Amino acid sequence: MTARNISQFWEWGRKIICVGRNYADHAKELKNAVPTEPVLFLKPPSAYVREGSPILMPAYTSELHHEVELGVVIGKGGTAISQSAAMGHVAGYALCLDMTARDIQDECKSKGLPWTLAKAFNTSCPVSEFIPRERIPDPGNVKLWLKVNDQLRQSGSTCQMIFSVPYLISYISDVITLEEGDVILTGTPKGVSAVQEHDELQAGIEDVVTMSFRVERRDQL
Amino acid sequence: MTARNISQFWEWGRKIICVGRNYADHAKELKNAVPTEPVLFLKPPSAYVREGSPILMPAYTSELHHEVELGVVIGKGGTAISQSAAMGHVAGYALCLDMTARDIQDECKSKGLPWTLAKAFNTSCPVSEFIPRERIPDPGNVKLWLKVNDQLRQSGSTCQMIFSVPYLISYISDVITLEEGDVILTGTPKGVSAVQEHDELQAGIEDVVTMSFRVERRDQL
Ligand SMILES: [Mg+2]
Ligand SMILES: [Mg+2]
Ligand SMILES: [Mg+2]
Repeated sequence: MTARNISQFWEWGRKIICVGRNYADHAKELKNAVPTEPVLFLKPPSAYVREGSPILMPAYTSELHHEVELGVVIGKGGTAISQSAAMGHVAGYALCLDMTARDIQDECKSKGLPWTLAKAFNTSCPVSEFIPRERIPDPGNVKLWLKVNDQLRQSGSTCQMIFSVPYLISYISDVITLEEGDVILTGTPKGVSAVQEHDELQAGIEDVVTMSFRVERRDQL
Repeated sequence: MTARNISQFWEWGRKIICVGRNYADHAKELKNAVPTEPVLFLKPPSAYVREGSPILMPAYTSELHHEVELGVVIGKGGTAISQSAAMGHVAGYALCLDMTARDIQDECKSKGLPWTLAKAFNTSCPVSEFIPRERIPDPGNVKLWLKVNDQLRQSGSTCQMIFSVPYLISYISDVITLEEGDVILTGTPKGVSAVQEHDELQAGIEDVVTMSFRVERRDQL
């Protein structure tokens, strides 16, 4: 096997593990209970999309929401990683969007069905460039923002997270072995809202990275 | 990138897409409605386990069920693959178990939560050797069986599937791009039941393959 470049984790990484309701103010805006343990769901690596390519709204949704999130890129895999060892498994970070077909998710929730169509479709995980860990000394104190057509919609800090990055790494790896190149999406602060065809999304981690994506309809392909 | 060997898809494949309730008799035994479109969920590649290693019951479940399923191994990736072209994307098959923490799944369903803890834990996807497509001329006419400690628990034919393999490839690839090495688990016939520590599971595709796995408790590690 040739050496893999962690700065292009999206080309070869094998999983994206997402945490739902990890900010109390976002759980409340969706009228969800604040969780007592992390809510986990998966996106496949085919969900990644990079700047320069559009976010494609699936034809089956009329309520596509943005969720801006800190992504944690795993450098060293492991099972049952302790919280105290967790940060040693982090290679770096990426700014990520957890694009969500909210109408479909609501339907899945009410029917007791998995969230796959709501969360795992192609382009449901826009990602920034790789951010080496040195550039974010404390993942528990990172300011995230997201604008739609230059209007600020989301602005929060990872200091508001219910479950910290080391806690999440430990909790997840106890059930699902983490591998190099895996990404954990750590949840979104409040302010999620629907986007429309031709909208321009801009998101950033303060002082670290910005990225922008255009929204298009999938049925134009 | 060095060439990847499809006969070891579990080492490098990037996703496992599972279809729920694809046999009417199994949907009924779990008191679920027979679906009008496929129910999809994901397992991560870290869920694979091969013969010689045990299935590990997570500590959080007291009702671990076996589901024997035909796995379809994708050879040629694609998006929005037509049903008529679908079989050209199949490299072969694998016999798979969709190990399910049924108590946790029931709880997730009633709370509207994703099925991750019920379906995606380590060793939740035991797989056989790779079966080249020539050995299964018609994936719609394959007999599957599963025994626990030599007692027959599941016996069915893929001719009972609600959605055929070509239909599933077309349906899934319209939403989630398929890549080489991906596996689709096509659902289970009736007869699912709970397994216990030290149980021996044997499963087979008639005239094609058999495999066996021992169940152990995760907390022995
Ligand atoms: Mg999210
Ligand atoms: Mg347009
Ligand atoms: Mg199943």
